[in-house]
Amino acid sequence: MRAPDELRALIEGYLHTLDLSADLGELRDSMRYSLEGGGKRIRPVLCLATAEALGCEPERVLPAAAALELVHSFSLVHDDLPALDDDAVRRGRPSAHIQWGEDVAILAGDALFGEAVRLALSYPSPAVARELVAATQGMIGGQYLDVNGGAELEELHRLKTGCLFVAAIGLALEVVELPAPEQAPWRAFAAELGLLFQLVDDLLDRDGYVLVHGVEETRRLADEAAARAQSLLAGIDAGTSVLEGITESLVSRTS
Amino acid sequence: MRAPDELRALIEGYLHTLDLSADLGELRDSMRYSLEGGGKRIRPVLCLATAEALGCEPERVLPAAAALELVHSFSLVHDDLPALDDDAVRRGRPSAHIQWGEDVAILAGDALFGEAVRLALSYPSPAVARELVAATQGMIGGQYLDVNGGAELEELHRLKTGCLFVAAIGLALEVVELPAPEQAPWRAFAAELGLLFQLVDDLLDRDGYVLVHGVEETRRLADEAAARAQSLLAGIDAGTSVLEGITESLVSRTS
Repeated sequence: MRAPDELRALIEGYLHTLDLSADLGELRDSMRYSLEGGGKRIRPVLCLATAEALGCEPERVLPAAAALELVHSFSLVHDDLPALDDDAVRRGRPSAHIQWGEDVAILAGDALFGEAVRLALSYPSPAVARELVAATQGMIGGQYLDVNGGAELEELHRLKTGCLFVAAIGLALEVVELPAPEQAPWRAFAAELGLLFQLVDDLLDRDGYVLVHGVEETRRLADEAAARAQSLLAGIDAGTSVLEGITESLVSRTS
Repeated sequence: MRAPDELRALIEGYLHTLDLSADLGELRDSMRYSLEGGGKRIRPVLCLATAEALGCEPERVLPAAAALELVHSFSLVHDDLPALDDDAVRRGRPSAHIQWGEDVAILAGDALFGEAVRLALSYPSPAVARELVAATQGMIGGQYLDVNGGAELEELHRLKTGCLFVAAIGLALEVVELPAPEQAPWRAFAAELGLLFQLVDDLLDRDGYVLVHGVEETRRLADEAAARAQSLLAGIDAGTSVLEGITESLVSRTS
């Protein structure tokens, strides 16, 4: 079983040498800028770790894991635009529209989404791409609730953060073709992990849940989500030790 | 064989009752606004006519034809944005960002692309979605050349207009699973049709080719593209009479 850092190196290497559609021409430079800007790669690492827990070579899920990271990158590029969050800085560097102009950033986001689907379509079964696109539509629905206001925090986060976390696990399940009835505990685990990630995010940023429930209550909710995630993992007959470690590290992360 | 107007009614009806992902919530209102704003539906009509020419019920290609129209609609919504063409009016109505705000228009475009892929993924073979996404990436590459300037007109139009025209035919070929060696004349026909469409567009708008080559030369180029298209059709052993009529009508269109 490879440690999370080894899996992270695997996805970094794959993303670094990824061939993007030639028809995109120099737009690819702006896509690579956003894609290679660092980040924790938590979603693709989860995808690779899930595959390995199920006895599958992580390499086999690399295209699916990368596809998910491209969707995440696309969502950040569009989210940072002046009409949305208007963020000029992303991971310590100028955000895409500052670096390349707003027109190029819009097209780069579109093209990152397209390349993500192209990667997911490299598998013989369309189930992998279906999983990716359903999650992306959920994430976009979450962005819409966010800009529109008024939504319940739980629903907002289930869509905006949760969908891509569930897909991180779900894509691996589809690549290894785990029968649907066996997928339920995995997907329940993924949903708890997404909630945990968001709760800790809010604790670190002092917003979201913290503004509604306060720090102590948010910390308690995070610990409960982590406990449920670990309990679900314990009930799954697979090599889940790396996923247990990732869950633990999400509870205590400081960035 | 159904006439183009009957095929257009078919696609209009399908688009009008199309179920969009529930996770998108009220964002679906803005998507429907752009999708139901009229237009000639030339791409989906071509797709349906190609299927019928090959002896396939047009209904079988409706999801693929609709997917292509959704991609076209997504491209218009993003194209109209202030950072790109900055068009306040689309088909006689306020464009999406005027009607719904720039943030919603960006997300609606993203979600239209996602729904398009979802429709293309309703087929058992991933080849349909692969065709759609490859064309979309070409189209985005064309938009990039357009905002960036300096590209050859032929390459710009091959990507920006041609790719979706080739996909209009190509999607039907993939749905009916026409063997690859038999696809070549169909795809060559589609490329000529895309060129013809763009040349007539430039004649009507007095830009593009007309600014470079003048009216008479552009008209001559259009007539030549139409002749090549008809000649390619004549060499295909299928019921191509409706496609011949569509090609003829593209030469003489006035809007």
